[in-house]
Amino acid sequence: MPSLILVRHGQSQWNLENRFTGWWDVDLTEKGEAEARAAGQLLAEKGLLPTVAFTSLQTRAIRTLHLALENCGRVWIPETKDWRLNERHYGGLTGLDKAETAAKHGADQVKIWRRSFDTPPPPLADDSEFALAHDPRYAGIDVPAAESLKDTIARVLPYYENAILPALKAGETVIVSAHGNSLRALVKHLSQISDTDILELEIPTGQPIVYDFDAAFQPGERHYLKDR
Amino acid sequence: MPSLILVRHGQSQWNLENRFTGWWDVDLTEKGEAEARAAGQLLAEKGLLPTVAFTSLQTRAIRTLHLALENCGRVWIPETKDWRLNERHYGGLTGLDKAETAAKHGADQVKIWRRSFDTPPPPLADDSEFALAHDPRYAGIDVPAAESLKDTIARVLPYYENAILPALKAGETVIVSAHGNSLRALVKHLSQISDTDILELEIPTGQPIVYDFDAAFQPGERHYLKDR
Repeated sequence: MPSLILVRHGQSQWNLENRFTGWWDVDLTEKGEAEARAAGQLLAEKGLLPTVAFTSLQTRAIRTLHLALENCGRVWIPETKDWRLNERHYGGLTGLDKAETAAKHGADQVKIWRRSFDTPPPPLADDSEFALAHDPRYAGIDVPAAESLKDTIARVLPYYENAILPALKAGETVIVSAHGNSLRALVKHLSQISDTDILELEIPTGQPIVYDFDAAFQPGERHYLKDR
Repeated sequence: MPSLILVRHGQSQWNLENRFTGWWDVDLTEKGEAEARAAGQLLAEKGLLPTVAFTSLQTRAIRTLHLALENCGRVWIPETKDWRLNERHYGGLTGLDKAETAAKHGADQVKIWRRSFDTPPPPLADDSEFALAHDPRYAGIDVPAAESLKDTIARVLPYYENAILPALKAGETVIVSAHGNSLRALVKHLSQISDTDILELEIPTGQPIVYDFDAAFQPGERHYLKDR
């Protein structure tokens, strides 16, 4: 039976500094690299070996995938990278740490953004140092100025339906290396979590989450691979 | 104009030990990793940034690609892995070092294999520790028992015509991370080298070789990126 393995990238430099990252391309820390390697070792140990991989266009997720695959002897499987698996775009919050965000926008506003399913943060200014319009990796892609979690889901789910689910239906063991919010989008759909509850759900870094699919291609219970 | 960048993987453990490797999956040494990083730094320095990548199903070439791309900020480009870019299959010589090969087969026979374009080495025994029939990465692929350089060319060239050349015709800057003999196959074709001369041509590890293509998609002179 096919399985879907979800891995959130290991710690990045801006996770460590507690800054909103979104689409900005920040690399893993040494701790993040170690988390990715450990994820691969766990896949090998549990004998759950991916046969096909999907990831975002962001270095931290791609390198997490590569380090995990190297550590379970699967670096040779096909991999597809797509912007639809990118992190939620944090708009004008990109680059700010918690204290800066509260100082700039007020603690109440921050709480609204944090608790809201469909309110996007303020848009990223076109002349921001974090603007991506000229990044060649997004050539031909309409880069959002900011995204709510709802906006993120609206691009992740069609990608799941059109690219990931067909691989599962073909019997593959699929690994998706992605981000806190793109994985929230998938977990919300697969575990049927409400708009309110999904905001509280934390996806831990480097900890493989597994769904086993039945003969009708319905996902079973979500579980951590470490508990299996 | 499109460019084709060829990179032979950095030093592997068996390069270091002077053993025939072929399709056996041997990882890079630390020196090999450093060579791969340096190749990426050179691409960045010369401003020749790949937009699409091809590699073999072998860890040493895949990891060389990843390390090179990480070091020129291009880890996000699409990559395709295919067995047709694998190293030449050395058959029964796999795993032997120079001294063992001479002791087992005689120095004269070794010279014949080394100098011959179309004589394959002895076949790998089905029960060899290096047999790959049950390696899942080659599921559905008719793994050869041994290959001459001619045999290697016979699988590399159709792949070039069907997968790599179309990317060049689409205007991409293509990087191919592969092996001494799969790259010899490409260089023989692109630089029109004779069956005898190609045996003498050494492809150095981790040293990007570039062909610039003209408007009729004909390759120009072969040159090392470092000399540009």
